[in-house]
Amino acid sequence: MKKYNKVVLAYSGGLDTSIIISWLKENYGCEVIAVVGNVGQKDELEGLKEKALSSGASKIYIEDLTKEFVEDYIFPTIQAGAIYEGKYLLGTSFARPIIGKKLVEIALNEGADAICHGCTGKGNDQVRFELAVKHFAPDMDIIAPWRIWDIKSREEEIKYAEDHNIPLKITYETNYSKDKNLWHLSHEGLDLEYPENEPKYHKILELSNTLENAPDEATYISLTFEKGIAIALNGEKLSGVALMEKLNEIGGKNAIGIIDMVENRLVGMKSRGIYETPGGTILYKAHKDLEELCLDKETAHYKEIIALKFADLVYNGQWFSPLREALSAFVNKTQETVTGEIKLKLYKGNIVNAGMTSPYSLYSEEYATFGEDGIYNQKDAEGFINLFGLPTIVNSKMHSAIKKQDQ
Amino acid sequence: MKKYNKVVLAYSGGLDTSIIISWLKENYGCEVIAVVGNVGQKDELEGLKEKALSSGASKIYIEDLTKEFVEDYIFPTIQAGAIYEGKYLLGTSFARPIIGKKLVEIALNEGADAICHGCTGKGNDQVRFELAVKHFAPDMDIIAPWRIWDIKSREEEIKYAEDHNIPLKITYETNYSKDKNLWHLSHEGLDLEYPENEPKYHKILELSNTLENAPDEATYISLTFEKGIAIALNGEKLSGVALMEKLNEIGGKNAIGIIDMVENRLVGMKSRGIYETPGGTILYKAHKDLEELCLDKETAHYKEIIALKFADLVYNGQWFSPLREALSAFVNKTQETVTGEIKLKLYKGNIVNAGMTSPYSLYSEEYATFGEDGIYNQKDAEGFINLFGLPTIVNSKMHSAIKKQDQ
Amino acid sequence: MKKYNKVVLAYSGGLDTSIIISWLKENYGCEVIAVVGNVGQKDELEGLKEKALSSGASKIYIEDLTKEFVEDYIFPTIQAGAIYEGKYLLGTSFARPIIGKKLVEIALNEGADAICHGCTGKGNDQVRFELAVKHFAPDMDIIAPWRIWDIKSREEEIKYAEDHNIPLKITYETNYSKDKNLWHLSHEGLDLEYPENEPKYHKILELSNTLENAPDEATYISLTFEKGIAIALNGEKLSGVALMEKLNEIGGKNAIGIIDMVENRLVGMKSRGIYETPGGTILYKAHKDLEELCLDKETAHYKEIIALKFADLVYNGQWFSPLREALSAFVNKTQETVTGEIKLKLYKGNIVNAGMTSPYSLYSEEYATFGEDGIYNQKDAEGFINLFGLPTIVNSKMHSAIKKQDQ
Amino acid sequence: MKKYNKVVLAYSGGLDTSIIISWLKENYGCEVIAVVGNVGQKDELEGLKEKALSSGASKIYIEDLTKEFVEDYIFPTIQAGAIYEGKYLLGTSFARPIIGKKLVEIALNEGADAICHGCTGKGNDQVRFELAVKHFAPDMDIIAPWRIWDIKSREEEIKYAEDHNIPLKITYETNYSKDKNLWHLSHEGLDLEYPENEPKYHKILELSNTLENAPDEATYISLTFEKGIAIALNGEKLSGVALMEKLNEIGGKNAIGIIDMVENRLVGMKSRGIYETPGGTILYKAHKDLEELCLDKETAHYKEIIALKFADLVYNGQWFSPLREALSAFVNKTQETVTGEIKLKLYKGNIVNAGMTSPYSLYSEEYATFGEDGIYNQKDAEGFINLFGLPTIVNSKMHSAIKKQDQ
Repeated sequence: MKKYNKVVLAYSGGLDTSIIISWLKENYGCEVIAVVGNVGQKDELEGLKEKALSSGASKIYIEDLTKEFVEDYIFPTIQAGAIYEGKYLLGTSFARPIIGKKLVEIALNEGADAICHGCTGKGNDQVRFELAVKHFAPDMDIIAPWRIWDIKSREEEIKYAEDHNIPLKITYETNYSKDKNLWHLSHEGLDLEYPENEPKYHKILELSNTLENAPDEATYISLTFEKGIAIALNGEKLSGVALMEKLNEIGGKNAIGIIDMVENRLVGMKSRGIYETPGGTILYKAHKDLEELCLDKETAHYKEIIALKFADLVYNGQWFSPLREALSAFVNKTQETVTGEIKLKLYKGNIVNAGMTSPYSLYSEEYATFGEDGIYNQKDAEGFINLFGLPTIVNSKMHSAIKKQDQ
Repeated sequence: MKKYNKVVLAYSGGLDTSIIISWLKENYGCEVIAVVGNVGQKDELEGLKEKALSSGASKIYIEDLTKEFVEDYIFPTIQAGAIYEGKYLLGTSFARPIIGKKLVEIALNEGADAICHGCTGKGNDQVRFELAVKHFAPDMDIIAPWRIWDIKSREEEIKYAEDHNIPLKITYETNYSKDKNLWHLSHEGLDLEYPENEPKYHKILELSNTLENAPDEATYISLTFEKGIAIALNGEKLSGVALMEKLNEIGGKNAIGIIDMVENRLVGMKSRGIYETPGGTILYKAHKDLEELCLDKETAHYKEIIALKFADLVYNGQWFSPLREALSAFVNKTQETVTGEIKLKLYKGNIVNAGMTSPYSLYSEEYATFGEDGIYNQKDAEGFINLFGLPTIVNSKMHSAIKKQDQ
Repeated sequence: MKKYNKVVLAYSGGLDTSIIISWLKENYGCEVIAVVGNVGQKDELEGLKEKALSSGASKIYIEDLTKEFVEDYIFPTIQAGAIYEGKYLLGTSFARPIIGKKLVEIALNEGADAICHGCTGKGNDQVRFELAVKHFAPDMDIIAPWRIWDIKSREEEIKYAEDHNIPLKITYETNYSKDKNLWHLSHEGLDLEYPENEPKYHKILELSNTLENAPDEATYISLTFEKGIAIALNGEKLSGVALMEKLNEIGGKNAIGIIDMVENRLVGMKSRGIYETPGGTILYKAHKDLEELCLDKETAHYKEIIALKFADLVYNGQWFSPLREALSAFVNKTQETVTGEIKLKLYKGNIVNAGMTSPYSLYSEEYATFGEDGIYNQKDAEGFINLFGLPTIVNSKMHSAIKKQDQ
Repeated sequence: MKKYNKVVLAYSGGLDTSIIISWLKENYGCEVIAVVGNVGQKDELEGLKEKALSSGASKIYIEDLTKEFVEDYIFPTIQAGAIYEGKYLLGTSFARPIIGKKLVEIALNEGADAICHGCTGKGNDQVRFELAVKHFAPDMDIIAPWRIWDIKSREEEIKYAEDHNIPLKITYETNYSKDKNLWHLSHEGLDLEYPENEPKYHKILELSNTLENAPDEATYISLTFEKGIAIALNGEKLSGVALMEKLNEIGGKNAIGIIDMVENRLVGMKSRGIYETPGGTILYKAHKDLEELCLDKETAHYKEIIALKFADLVYNGQWFSPLREALSAFVNKTQETVTGEIKLKLYKGNIVNAGMTSPYSLYSEEYATFGEDGIYNQKDAEGFINLFGLPTIVNSKMHSAIKKQDQ
């Protein structure tokens, strides 16, 4: 085994990364610097300093990335309309690159000779972390203990922790595997591993009410967008972080954005997860609806194709890639007129458009109404249909001719 | 004006097609044969025979197309997963080609020399009807009164009807422009023409409860699919038509499938509509979720792209086109393993997956779990990431080299 | 017929636009201002002033658009790699928008109340001109005589010219319908209208030698690109216009870029044409090959898809559209590293890559060679293939299980 | 190291697979059965039996796969129009799956416990072979010596061969790495590893004349297609294999189909190669041109997108995948009318369309000519353009309104 002097570890305070501190020191004889990227995981951040140090880290960085996370990762992805496999709003996916970037920054400053993460060898997150590291420090060594050590299960981890006197508040029966940030909370594992099982939402949900427990009274909100970016809630200008927090609260109360899906991981397998994305789901819906007013048809339709690729890239951890950047250039251009206000009614899991306006609206009731008007000449439709249908006629006549000949 | 002997009219019994009978006879001196394609519009079919004859038609055909509609148009579109602009389930779109096909069949049998429809010159339906006619009878003349006559508004229509003693039950204050069939009911016009208005759902909805009025108790159902086709509800084998009817009832009760959108018409303008598609929305969701189990990732992702084009073609009336047929060949191939059962919980506008199974499931908890296993080797991930990330490294090193050189 | 005071005419000096001057004055009683956009049609520009005035125009503008044409239309399209239907380099397509833009500019300055063009009602150019006009002056009237007047053929045009004493140098037996600019020369009509006919290249070609007459000795050139733009030929920095002129000469001599195709027009029909694009074909090839070195795989592959849409938009006259602009934003981003030099051997219709270099090259013989190396670890391939092939295994095992069960 | 009893080896008679026989026996103590898939490599097949047995194989199978190769792999790929990265006609790519399939068949019959191939760990072929094996025998072990052993270079291979008395006709100065079959011959390595080098074609080419040495007299041929499949040459019906052989001869003589490219391998790196595909290039061109007559625009344009994905799948070794099969279903549907005859002129690297006909031609000079006609009404174009251009007008007016407001 290679030896390292100083290793920077992506630390969460969970079971995995707690025992990894010990394991790294034991196996590489190295100093371990814990790095926590605060992307909005809130209560999970409490007591991390003590925990890391008592687990053997020499130092801990807790970096507030929330502003950058919202503005540089979340908002551009909303603008793109990127949704993975028609459902997943990419909450874990775009949290990894930003943390990876910070890991490299600290590793370079600290003169560390490797970066370590606690991701399993079966998931997407290892790829997302490592691609970010490869991008910012192509020569940096990466240590992924789950792909190396002999520990094979949660049970063996707990045993290791006990053997090494690592402080633990995890108990055996816990729990779903979770990932939390300002954008979402995901749940995997246990009974969810069997797609035939109905999720026990009342046990699972943390950010959201269950549908049944959501209020019987609807909540109305308004959102203001400027160039595809949400800038105000109910008329009040808010920073991205503040907006997300408020929307999460409102959305969660109304049971918005609970997703159950079997998804295709990058590493070749399917997995099943429950996602809570209360605020994010509202933002996607609001932005998409506003685009209906502000984008012309050709752009809107092509943007649907682009969104599919954008989602794949984000999911696959390819945030820092030439293609993602080129797609973002496309998206940015389309967002120049996505400005306006939308009212939404939130009610027991439903988001209902309650009216929207935009100075850039391309909708014109003048054209669309069935009554009289001056500008749109219905007679034009005949010519349009005749040319639009010309290939149909040519094709049909060709086949008739063939048929006649065959007789 | 050209003269015609016998004209076949796509007749609905509404204001438009009622006065068209008169207008055709007056202007072309022709016999008018009314044709009604029954695609599930139900109560709208009542009394049509008397109405058509009393309006001056020489004859009426009321053709039951419901079975063909469900099996040959609706189900293949569900299999494709085609949704127009992310929302619209194409209810009106695929009803027009099937009626157009029937119009041609009767026109040819009757020796008619033209086909007439009552679609406005501003909408998509004129295109959809006419493309079907051009496909099955490329030399058939088509009459579209709205593009020819001087009538410019509903008011002028009513005046015309009164002047010509055409029996009417329409009153002035009515109403949204509607299109109804076994799949859906659409609403356009009046206050809906202003996207800033919240729809008055309690006045609009006919197939569905409002969200608020839907039951406080969830309804659980199960759907069985065979090769992408729904064949049983709650374990009971049903014909396509019977299944749609039951699902509409159950879905409507639970306020499922109410859509508000500003859409891009083929003829260059945006329009705003409310769609009720209770049963259809359930079917789309059920089918899509089942595909999560049954389709491999590459197929599923590419099918998302195909679905976009499929939706465009259906929306644009290009059902009878070589490309739609070729896309269907693609879709059919993918559906061979989309077989299984899914339970759904319906509750106040929400459709919640309550567990699903398939003999063709590609999900394997064996691979996906975080614990120990024999088949998936986590060590493989390192090699995977190294090659997957190789372009990132090469790119990063190239840029570093350039930067150094520039210094 | 509506009356106009002053009409701006897109004038070429050919038969069509010559008689249109007369026809406009006769039918609208208007002043006619001839506008010629010089996009490199060269000898066709000679004597235009006298001709226009003697044909009845009150004034003529001959505007040199060559620089703008090359830099703002041609080069961005090369960067996009846009080719229509795999063959057509869009020579006529992007010449129309730029002329349309200039027409509007002059019409607005002159206070004209309509813009007129001489395009046939069967072609693409009418659309391209009119979309540009609609973009820059949405309320401007457009006159398209070929869609209005009774003249139905070239013979009737000539008769009209003779009857109105319009000076003509066209003789009856002439000729292919042509369109010429700095980028290309197209030929349509006569014997070419029958796809079964082999083109008589020795009679058709004007910019190029026939393959047989091209020199027996190859010509070697080098091209230097900066961010996807060709900036130097054989080491000599050249303006875009000068570069195109030199490349046309060299390419034409070596019989480069002669295309015969049956293409699909926007207006629903197929047409057959011969295109000469000697310099342009060299530029496309050189740029594409250089991209092989400079673009990473994901970007390069997605750019192929983008190029298809880009080509459609240009072909359809949608240059001034939000989608074209958004696609250009994508393309521009990709071109940041498309810098380097390429040597080409031109020989009897062939363009052969004779070696290329780029400071941004992502090619590394270090990785690609079959021999020993330090960086790429062949062992990684096993893990890569195992995960890349995991869906294959899962799928195969699922089908085996089904088969066993069926027995 | 795992032990095996009987290993089936993909054998070519080259240096790699010759020493692998020894190496397998030495390392696994197993019997080695050599399998050669004859996909048209011709002279490379000579003496293979003796060679394999004298190298230590217990048995050799030489299986004639040429018919299956042409009919089930080559022809469907031509029909798809699949070309990798705009250049590569996939010659090696689709030869691997068919051989892999045969390897499994023999391995299962022979009761072998592993399959071995001699592909390098840096290339695509390892993936293509292994995906085929995983498809047909998901539990079969695969041995890839290049990823395991210590041999790092050709030099070390030769040393190993000498040490083990393996008969060799390879000399040190040889040579490009080659892959040959009925479809193509590829060349990699040596001076070609440097993209700045002009290839020494006179030394490299084996199937083809150099451009300069090709005859000064053109060769004319005609090809007959039925549903997208070439069935006759110069009017003579030929089997697929016979057709390929004749076309290779004719094409090679005329220096057709020589490609130089830097391609993106699946395993993350770029590589540079020269491909000779004389007959195949003719077939692609002929088929594509015929499609210009026989496919409608919408189908043709969408097929261009499909072709890109098809090419990726074939290149990546995913021939036996659900998506490739679904894409083939799409392609097959489009080919139903791709029937007709095309004449081609072959001359010094050029393939020139010399006229084509099809009973299914959608080209109609009746529509396309500039003169008078009855069916196409030029007046229709106005309506078409007005609706096609409506979004342009709406967009333009919206921006004008905004501008005015801003003033």
